Amino acid sequence: SRSIRLAAIPGDGIGPEVVAEGLKVLEAVAPAHDLTFEQTEYDLGAARYHRTGEVLPDSVLTELRDQDVILLGAIGDPSVPSGLLERGLLLRTRFEFDHYANLRPVKLLPGATSPIAGVGPDDIDMLVVREGTESLYAGTGGVIRKGTPHEIATQESVNTAFGVERVVRYAFQQAAARPRQKLTLVHKDNVLAYAGDLYQRTLKRVGEEFPQVETDYCHVDAATMYFVNQPRRFDVIVTDNLFGDIITDIGAAVAGGIGLAASGNVNPDGTAPSMFEPVHGSAPDIAGQGKADPTATILSVVMLLDHLGETAAARRVESAVAEDLVERAGSGVRSTAQIGDAIAKRVAG
Amino acid sequence: SRSIRLAAIPGDGIGPEVVAEGLKVLEAVAPAHDLTFEQTEYDLGAARYHRTGEVLPDSVLTELRDQDVILLGAIGDPSVPSGLLERGLLLRTRFEFDHYANLRPVKLLPGATSPIAGVGPDDIDMLVVREGTESLYAGTGGVIRKGTPHEIATQESVNTAFGVERVVRYAFQQAAARPRQKLTLVHKDNVLAYAGDLYQRTLKRVGEEFPQVETDYCHVDAATMYFVNQPRRFDVIVTDNLFGDIITDIGAAVAGGIGLAASGNVNPDGTAPSMFEPVHGSAPDIAGQGKADPTATILSVVMLLDHLGETAAARRVESAVAEDLVERAGSGVRSTAQIGDAIAKRVAG
Ligand SMILES: CC(C)[C@H](C(=O)O)[C@@H](O)C(=O)O
Ligand SMILES: CC(C)[C@H](C(=O)O)[C@@H](O)C(=O)O
Repeated sequence: SRSIRLAAIPGDGIGPEVVAEGLKVLEAVAPAHDLTFEQTEYDLGAARYHRTGEVLPDSVLTELRDQDVILLGAIGDPSVPSGLLERGLLLRTRFEFDHYANLRPVKLLPGATSPIAGVGPDDIDMLVVREGTESLYAGTGGVIRKGTPHEIATQESVNTAFGVERVVRYAFQQAAARPRQKLTLVHKDNVLAYAGDLYQRTLKRVGEEFPQVETDYCHVDAATMYFVNQPRRFDVIVTDNLFGDIITDIGAAVAGGIGLAASGNVNPDGTAPSMFEPVHGSAPDIAGQGKADPTATILSVVMLLDHLGETAAARRVESAVAEDLVERAGSGVRSTAQIGDAIAKRVAG
Repeated sequence: SRSIRLAAIPGDGIGPEVVAEGLKVLEAVAPAHDLTFEQTEYDLGAARYHRTGEVLPDSVLTELRDQDVILLGAIGDPSVPSGLLERGLLLRTRFEFDHYANLRPVKLLPGATSPIAGVGPDDIDMLVVREGTESLYAGTGGVIRKGTPHEIATQESVNTAFGVERVVRYAFQQAAARPRQKLTLVHKDNVLAYAGDLYQRTLKRVGEEFPQVETDYCHVDAATMYFVNQPRRFDVIVTDNLFGDIITDIGAAVAGGIGLAASGNVNPDGTAPSMFEPVHGSAPDIAGQGKADPTATILSVVMLLDHLGETAAARRVESAVAEDLVERAGSGVRSTAQIGDAIAKRVAG
């Protein structure tokens, strides 16, 4: 039996509710695939911050580093200044653990409904590879003369050959492994000339290693429009940290909603644990009411299993979700736990 | 009779075709409202660049400054390095003429069809006020060790109290003049802490002058999703230059397509001419074929007339477009000139 150390960070708002269902499904799939999950739950987020003033103690980061994988719910609460937990916990983990490939599938599953008229599962099947460790997320910038009429606030986008090349190569690898073998760079090179040029040159150079992959370029503004009216244009997309943040939310919207959007913060080199999380936030307005859809977390568990190389288990959970989605169309409103139970039952049975 | 000096910059690709129709409609509406347009056409764009190496000569800029208004088609061509014309001509004009309020209505007109299932004209009626003279468009940034494995490319977002305050106040004024009186700040303050904080504090402070306007905040990633699935959330939006660029393309997509999206690069202080242009680009793939929809340009002419205070003429053109859109649903495919002719005829008749 393979033993896997898993850290669960339920976090804020609906985080604990959806993570509970993700873990339920993981426990359900484990026996048949001879897996054991040694779970450690980490109490991080708004509650801990209010109690102790801590966001992510170094000692916790050290413990997390020893895990095989991390499952995260959601971070952020209106009782805490905007960004404090997000930067101190979520972004810090992505940076410290070098999660340079932020993987976000945008796929309309059978059974899910796109709000775009006339669009079906064949039309939306892409994988966004969002760079996860640089660009405007670097956190550099500052403010002078704060609060005066002469205040200047700057933010800096930092892009390195090292950082761009590794994520572009990773995206090429993903594209090469998919039937369409197409990779689109999404950027804004007509305005962000320095960073755009670095991405363009890197795409071209690394592309020489992947002659079978067709490459393409699309400005970020146009890309958001194509997500709505021409989603078939895209197979794999590689983009920077900020553009990736934005386009994957539209991706979620067109592919059936944020309740279904999964993601992986992946360290492809294996030098630190990768972290899987639903794309949605903590949704404090519906927290604690059993209203959240745990499907995005359960699909993040699928990505987690794939990352561990447990592809048979991953496919089993994925099929269970697909079946549940198809049945869902006909059924009434179910609670968070009812959806988790239904999927766990399919997985076990 | 009021005489208005108008500069036309047809530009590249489909630019000349759509500008011709915009001018046709302007000529059609002029007599009834006692207006005369003294037109000067400026030959700028890819062709001129190839012929003379010039993008926007200082002498042309000086002449343009003497005009009352500018009508622009589109700039950009694959034969010219990406961004060269856009930065040298379009962005330079926006900056030199201090077009700090980039106005982009996102409105589903009766007769237009949203690709979003079940969405009608009552659901989409917003005005995006995009800051037009700073943030990442400032053009600051640079590259070191270019072409080496140690290359670093940076881009800087520069935000000033001066620049943010004036656009936020302008947006409040717009919101105060609309029935819903709601203003939403769209930013990413949980990551872009310095710039986001400046926008947030400014919204709060300037908001004290507009107690009747309800204010709200939305992260840019979530906003793109709401454009698709909850467009009614928004009335007036104020946002930075880059976020405004991105969200108005999704706005165009959900409000019936880029063929209908108009914009104004407005200098509200009147210290230089404002410039009106369709949101779409030069679309070189369909240039010269009479396939482009001139409606976005004609709606930009409506904004131009409103800017000049010629509201009766503006409403007349607007109604003609609305009627044409409703009829269009039933009719076959029409050429660029046929659409322009049909609207001009309604305007004149
Ligand atoms: C919470 C926030 C910092 C985060 C991001 O911007 O990356 C979120 O939007 C996401 O997409 O995971
Ligand atoms: C052409 C480009 C520089 C421009 C921009 O980014 O502002 C365009 O996309 C727009 O929205 O007007």
